[in-house]
Amino acid sequence: MRVPGFSAAAVEAGIKYSNRLDLGMIVSGRPAVTAGVFTRNLVKAAPVLDAMELFRQGHLFRAIVVNSGNANACTGDRGSRDCKTIREETARMLGCAPGEVLVSSTGVIGAFLPMERYLAGLEKMASSLSEDGLLDVANAILTTDTRPKTASRTVSVGGNEIRLSGMAKGAGMIAPSMGPPQATMLSFVCCDAAVQPGFWQETLEQAVDASFNRITVDGDMSTNDTVIAMASGRAGNPVEDGRGELAGALRQAMNSLLSELAREIVRDGEGATKCVTVRIKGARNQLDAELAARAIANSSLVKTAFFGQDPNWGRILAAAGRSGAVFDPDSSAIYIDNWRIVENGRPLGPEAEAQAALSMKNEEFTVTVDLSAGQAGFQILTCDLTDEYVHINADYRT
Amino acid sequence: MRVPGFSAAAVEAGIKYSNRLDLGMIVSGRPAVTAGVFTRNLVKAAPVLDAMELFRQGHLFRAIVVNSGNANACTGDRGSRDCKTIREETARMLGCAPGEVLVSSTGVIGAFLPMERYLAGLEKMASSLSEDGLLDVANAILTTDTRPKTASRTVSVGGNEIRLSGMAKGAGMIAPSMGPPQATMLSFVCCDAAVQPGFWQETLEQAVDASFNRITVDGDMSTNDTVIAMASGRAGNPVEDGRGELAGALRQAMNSLLSELAREIVRDGEGATKCVTVRIKGARNQLDAELAARAIANSSLVKTAFFGQDPNWGRILAAAGRSGAVFDPDSSAIYIDNWRIVENGRPLGPEAEAQAALSMKNEEFTVTVDLSAGQAGFQILTCDLTDEYVHINADYRT
Repeated sequence: MRVPGFSAAAVEAGIKYSNRLDLGMIVSGRPAVTAGVFTRNLVKAAPVLDAMELFRQGHLFRAIVVNSGNANACTGDRGSRDCKTIREETARMLGCAPGEVLVSSTGVIGAFLPMERYLAGLEKMASSLSEDGLLDVANAILTTDTRPKTASRTVSVGGNEIRLSGMAKGAGMIAPSMGPPQATMLSFVCCDAAVQPGFWQETLEQAVDASFNRITVDGDMSTNDTVIAMASGRAGNPVEDGRGELAGALRQAMNSLLSELAREIVRDGEGATKCVTVRIKGARNQLDAELAARAIANSSLVKTAFFGQDPNWGRILAAAGRSGAVFDPDSSAIYIDNWRIVENGRPLGPEAEAQAALSMKNEEFTVTVDLSAGQAGFQILTCDLTDEYVHINADYRT
Repeated sequence: MRVPGFSAAAVEAGIKYSNRLDLGMIVSGRPAVTAGVFTRNLVKAAPVLDAMELFRQGHLFRAIVVNSGNANACTGDRGSRDCKTIREETARMLGCAPGEVLVSSTGVIGAFLPMERYLAGLEKMASSLSEDGLLDVANAILTTDTRPKTASRTVSVGGNEIRLSGMAKGAGMIAPSMGPPQATMLSFVCCDAAVQPGFWQETLEQAVDASFNRITVDGDMSTNDTVIAMASGRAGNPVEDGRGELAGALRQAMNSLLSELAREIVRDGEGATKCVTVRIKGARNQLDAELAARAIANSSLVKTAFFGQDPNWGRILAAAGRSGAVFDPDSSAIYIDNWRIVENGRPLGPEAEAQAALSMKNEEFTVTVDLSAGQAGFQILTCDLTDEYVHINADYRT
């Protein structure tokens, strides 16, 4: 996962969990051009408000400090002061300005950070930064995730070799929402390209919209969702402002990187056993396609049928029918992978469904609904709803 | 449950289940003024389309025929023809016109009705109608419900005694949606008042909006939702057109009756162990209040926390925060029953939460969120999300 210009470290700070990494730090050797996308939830955690304020002031940052186990959300003035303290202490240790440090948190809402343990952890990390530390950070940010999620891409254009490495955590409280790009979990990307800030922010927003904004686990949107991408400039390419020869390849690499991480979040969704692509085609317009796709992907009845490996097209069609999308049910068709099970709104019978049920035994499959009302389409990734999801979330304050 | 002017019967027709009532008939001795409210799902079952068409032509009906086990939805032309056949056969047996018979169905989507068994069942019912038959019908319409749901009211005004008896079935695929009144399950009401059709339809719509449209089990809206209210006129009161002395009492009785049935549907929701009132107050306006209430009531994370008896106010606040309602989280308050657990967006601590957790051990409790942004409020009933819900719905084609 190495990216020239970046070092990282993680420690067991004991913020909530014992015997596991729960505090991480990513540091750029020099100020990095940084882009950020944050939750649109009205209830925003202290670190999100803190980071959004810093982004209003500039786009050059030296470090990200991130913890799991405690979201520092609904913590009022004290939560904000704690963010500031973390930035000041980190800045002192790294020899940069407090305004060059971004803080991020994930975990339980409403508890104050254990600052003594947190600051002790910072000391340890500052003295153990390593070019190989990113994977440790990817482990430190996990909560109910069962495994770390990382991905890398290399872009070679005009003699320049650019490296992108990213990490993400997800599992629960995962839902994109429509409208402007937004994040739905934590993800951090390091890149060594030299980029112009506007281009970098736009590249990140577009990629988030095409990836994290098109996944759902449980339809809930977090208070802490954050995606941050830092570009160190160490690759020495001519600064890319969107019109250079690197622009297209960088956009593509960022899309591909975040899409891989987004898919990993769904695959590791709380209790999930299936990763399902819900694809709408033939919609009257883009909005209808998105409404129908999201209604199906978030339907508890559809998601439990996925768990049961049941090609229950009636639930799929009923979800599309209540979505607000306009179509003629009697012209619609439904496919599981390539097996058509509904044509002109009518089931094709037990044989077709038996084939579809076989496809649904796989960990990944695609549900396609053709609304036959136009040319627009939309695609979203979802998982199944299982008894394990209920167990994970019914336990006291996970 | 007797209502003057009505008789009813139910039989074991073997439509899908064995050894249980699954076909019912409610008959008015003379044409009854009838009101109906139907699903707004774009995908409407054949009997819903059939009944809606009949209501466009008039409002006097003699009978309702209703089956469980098969929704007669997504059954195309054959489904419509089957409805017609059922109406014609029923009319022949009862000596009325086919246009005076309403058909209703609930159950599996996409299968054709077993017409031979259905028609044999009709014969049996027509010859066994009884004034005491309504409870049998209430049993015959159940699907995943664990018990019949019935309620009665008596209204005495100016020497007239009016009787209303109603039944409902619900359990899954239950969600109201905003906007004009609509049904979200099956419910049938018999009344012996003499009413003017416009007043009766308006009375039903207002009552549905205040009851069935304010409950949710799983956020899914069915293809078959239907509420029908028949008024036989046998009480002999002066025909009530909304300006008479009976109007207010009748409206109140209908509201109260449907509210009781709606609550029973939530209490018997698939896998439910809790019936929770989600109450928003202090919203900027009515829409905000409704958005916040529905976001909380439909959140999988909130509903699993109810199951876990966990006063997880963070999930409640986060759901309100993503709902679209505008408020200042730092001014909000949250109560479980009368226990305040959040004030000014901050938790009041373990003691308050321990009290709240005690309340949550009850089968019924209230969550109140004060957005402190205005004067508007909204209230909705929901249930918890349990592993049993997952089991019920993951089973093949329940």
